[in-house]
Amino acid sequence: MIVGSSKHLRAIAISALALACQAAFAEAPAGHSDAAMKEYQAAGSPLAEVPMHHDINPLAPRMSEPEFDKASRIFFERCAGCHGVLRKGATGKALTPDLTLEKGLDYLKVFIKYGSPGGMPNWGTSGVLTDDEVDLMARYIQQTPPAPPEFGLKEMEASWKVVIPVEKRPTKKMNDLKLENLFSVTLRDDGKIALIDGDSKQIVSIIETGYAVHISRMSASGRYLFVIGRDAKINLIDLWMEKPETVAEIKVGLEARSVESSKAKGWEDKYAIAGTYWPPQFVIMDGDTLQPRKIVSTRGMVVGTQDYHPEPRVAAIISSHFNPEFFVNVKETGMVYSVDYRDLENLSIKMIEAAPFLHDGGFESSHRYFMDAANASDKIAVIDTKEGKLEKLVDVGKVPHPGRGANFLDPKYGPVWATGHLGDETISLIGTDPEKHPDNAWKVVRTLKGLGGGSLFLKTHPTSKNLWVDTTLNPDEKISQAVAVWDIDNIDKGYELIPIGDWSGIKAGPKRVVQPEYNKAGDEVWFSVWNGADQESAIVVVDDRTRKLKAVIRDPRLITPTGKFNVYNTQHDVY
Amino acid sequence: MIVGSSKHLRAIAISALALACQAAFAEAPAGHSDAAMKEYQAAGSPLAEVPMHHDINPLAPRMSEPEFDKASRIFFERCAGCHGVLRKGATGKALTPDLTLEKGLDYLKVFIKYGSPGGMPNWGTSGVLTDDEVDLMARYIQQTPPAPPEFGLKEMEASWKVVIPVEKRPTKKMNDLKLENLFSVTLRDDGKIALIDGDSKQIVSIIETGYAVHISRMSASGRYLFVIGRDAKINLIDLWMEKPETVAEIKVGLEARSVESSKAKGWEDKYAIAGTYWPPQFVIMDGDTLQPRKIVSTRGMVVGTQDYHPEPRVAAIISSHFNPEFFVNVKETGMVYSVDYRDLENLSIKMIEAAPFLHDGGFESSHRYFMDAANASDKIAVIDTKEGKLEKLVDVGKVPHPGRGANFLDPKYGPVWATGHLGDETISLIGTDPEKHPDNAWKVVRTLKGLGGGSLFLKTHPTSKNLWVDTTLNPDEKISQAVAVWDIDNIDKGYELIPIGDWSGIKAGPKRVVQPEYNKAGDEVWFSVWNGADQESAIVVVDDRTRKLKAVIRDPRLITPTGKFNVYNTQHDVY
Repeated sequence: MIVGSSKHLRAIAISALALACQAAFAEAPAGHSDAAMKEYQAAGSPLAEVPMHHDINPLAPRMSEPEFDKASRIFFERCAGCHGVLRKGATGKALTPDLTLEKGLDYLKVFIKYGSPGGMPNWGTSGVLTDDEVDLMARYIQQTPPAPPEFGLKEMEASWKVVIPVEKRPTKKMNDLKLENLFSVTLRDDGKIALIDGDSKQIVSIIETGYAVHISRMSASGRYLFVIGRDAKINLIDLWMEKPETVAEIKVGLEARSVESSKAKGWEDKYAIAGTYWPPQFVIMDGDTLQPRKIVSTRGMVVGTQDYHPEPRVAAIISSHFNPEFFVNVKETGMVYSVDYRDLENLSIKMIEAAPFLHDGGFESSHRYFMDAANASDKIAVIDTKEGKLEKLVDVGKVPHPGRGANFLDPKYGPVWATGHLGDETISLIGTDPEKHPDNAWKVVRTLKGLGGGSLFLKTHPTSKNLWVDTTLNPDEKISQAVAVWDIDNIDKGYELIPIGDWSGIKAGPKRVVQPEYNKAGDEVWFSVWNGADQESAIVVVDDRTRKLKAVIRDPRLITPTGKFNVYNTQHDVY
Repeated sequence: MIVGSSKHLRAIAISALALACQAAFAEAPAGHSDAAMKEYQAAGSPLAEVPMHHDINPLAPRMSEPEFDKASRIFFERCAGCHGVLRKGATGKALTPDLTLEKGLDYLKVFIKYGSPGGMPNWGTSGVLTDDEVDLMARYIQQTPPAPPEFGLKEMEASWKVVIPVEKRPTKKMNDLKLENLFSVTLRDDGKIALIDGDSKQIVSIIETGYAVHISRMSASGRYLFVIGRDAKINLIDLWMEKPETVAEIKVGLEARSVESSKAKGWEDKYAIAGTYWPPQFVIMDGDTLQPRKIVSTRGMVVGTQDYHPEPRVAAIISSHFNPEFFVNVKETGMVYSVDYRDLENLSIKMIEAAPFLHDGGFESSHRYFMDAANASDKIAVIDTKEGKLEKLVDVGKVPHPGRGANFLDPKYGPVWATGHLGDETISLIGTDPEKHPDNAWKVVRTLKGLGGGSLFLKTHPTSKNLWVDTTLNPDEKISQAVAVWDIDNIDKGYELIPIGDWSGIKAGPKRVVQPEYNKAGDEVWFSVWNGADQESAIVVVDDRTRKLKAVIRDPRLITPTGKFNVYNTQHDVY
């Protein structure tokens, strides 16, 4: 059973989402198979290594210090993604002592060991936790949650390093790389990125970065590459240098996902911004040095209920091409902050009410509207970045996960933006042209049926007639190792299945296929074939026009490749 | 020794400020006399009555539940004002277990019992706390601070009551009161306000309100009166009714100080806003029903250090006459939030960096610039409400406490705005006319020497030639029972001392004189003679032109009168 709309599948999907996708392509316990669980261990939160302030609730069972430390580590590795660092609940339920003490130890142990159809993984019977560890965790969640430390200007400045000062950098491009067709590829479990030349498919350079790089972003000029690790370390890489390398770095928190660069006219390359999961805040930095300038907390009230949330994590951030503004997804409160970066000392923020939990998204083709996935609400929030307001909330499938989405011309409905879903097999196409197709605007005009649930990314290109959709987190290997492709001109005719995993030539491993990414010309699409850290992985390049295999990039240095970011497409938000 | 600049006096002043003035005219342990301490007991925080979530730090000395509860109550009554509810420090030092455990029990007990020249009151030797209680508090502050509960939309709505629906209210004024010269007088320890007719000096009505009303504010139209208690209860009083009374009420948190009403053209009477000390947030409500619409947390980073502060309390709020904006003082972070109330669902906030701890202030005469006291920084922050930015930080005396300040024409320097101080005897006059007196603008052009430290309020009126300054918190009775008045045209000639306390005819009690307030015509100035709750108090009315006694209002119902708010002057920000 792959596709479907059962509560269970949704729960798996949500669980996978929080545990895995939000966690930078972490492997998810999809299907709750032992193997998936084991793989997932690689995805542990950097917070697991942070010493925590330690209190004990006198009403809770006593724990020794070593027990508390071990439980704390397990919690941050396994549980915090869904239940929140402070256990106030997010995708998973709240686990504060007022609730857990009432449930009682036996109830909690059963729940932890066997899981639930509501989405709780079966940590005991899957073999990840022993009975003793289950007991430990049941006692642990009856204690007062330890709070990770704050991370303010002082901590950021202490970590900040300008490796090559601006005045010592080149004033023009010093290499003969075709920068616009360069790819920055996350080598997830190796704490590195690979720069790969899009024409020759050769690895140009391997650069040390933070742990489990979540995304690469380009400065407006196309010169600077920003990458951010899950450990909140940012590398600023100067692509003009003879050999592109890190010119500045900083740690902006304890756990992070997002970085972006200012793109408005007159503000190109001026600022960078990064959002953190912990502490829940964002920071604006100088674009050429990463010097931290302005930190803003996102703690605040949830849309609708207007309850205080102590831990509203910062998910995707996009940069307006029109106005000097960043649009910051504040996940748990369901608000998009439009941050006007013209005057940092008198910083203007518009708190746009959307819906929880805001995750990722991208522009429609005009770049005016930000199509923003509210995954817990099964909605796409359409944010008008020109007016700075919510345009519409559009109901889509279960747990949308668009990445940046895909823009194309639907043969019947005109311009659309598409998203896949973690929770079902559908792809939702939303009309995006309020001027010429007002009847279709901000509605799901068409729903495609894809390979199955567990899709992370889909992509097309302005020059292409294909829509590519992965299903990376589907529990069925045949599906997670393949992608579906639609002919846009005949989109109602169904998809073709392309066995990317097989095409890679790699025999062993889960070989999950993840993230279609186009080259600059739009005539090639690249896929990661993502294996375990001790297994061979690959990148498979497909000829977009013929849908035939064009190249397989195999290299011992290509360890756990996941996200791939074409410089030109990233720079100009082409997708 | 009354006036002076010793560290000790400053400490007393700061202590008095946090313990007393921020606490709505609470009596302060000024001079640390036993009597003052005893009086101060009446000022306890409403948080002392709130059941707290209770954790115990295993490294700290054990406490029984009743001990913890008692200590918690004492802490909120005595200590939270300076040290913060979460003990992260504000006017007083941080008292988190990481710091207090290191100090050790004996050190803490000595400190609590004997106080310090740094401003810590001598709680033991003053007789307020027994030795056992000192021991209790020393152990208590080594525990993890209990956090008071949050207060979100649900809690506000549960407390919200429309006593008389809008459609059942009169459509025109139904009484023959001269509303513009009505005074709303806080009866601090009686949990009421008195409405007093300015012409007849008769009490028109006594209205039940929250505890220790901090301020009264008028809606733009002059119809609605808002009062807010220290317990965060707001009463909306309709002055058009036959007998003015409460038509709606709400509790917006657990402890509060500020309320204001929208005043921009087209937005008159539309919204109200209230800021709370706990939780640290503000709420925008409908102006005619108090229905809560939008809650915004103020937790965030401190200006300068950009460290996270968990408890940035909301102090004064003013309403722009030009733009649809409220200006909200976020005390501990030192930021003024300019809140644009045109679109609550896409709420725009500009975070203007000023300095800690923002307390109170008022407009200069053009109403464009908000003169805002940053009391811990000994500065007045000049906020340009038209441009929404910090214009200037002006160094003034020690711990400025302007109330709303006083605007007049200095014979030499042109238009000025004045503030008194808690920490010294000076009155600082700041030039406020950048157009015609650019050399004097945003500088202290003149410093007057007044009666002594401990001034809370000063006032003049556009039609007056007098500047009146109280010294309510001065430890010397002769001074706290008198006021100083300057002839503005001969301002360098020194002040005349007016013995308001004596003029009241009341014999017993501390009879502190507080807050000059003008009538609408500007030819009378009213003073509260503020005694204990079981003693007689009075209001003394002085002829502003002759400086002679005009009337004494004595009435058994006039229990602990403090702030007085003339309807017209409050409505139009005349001061």
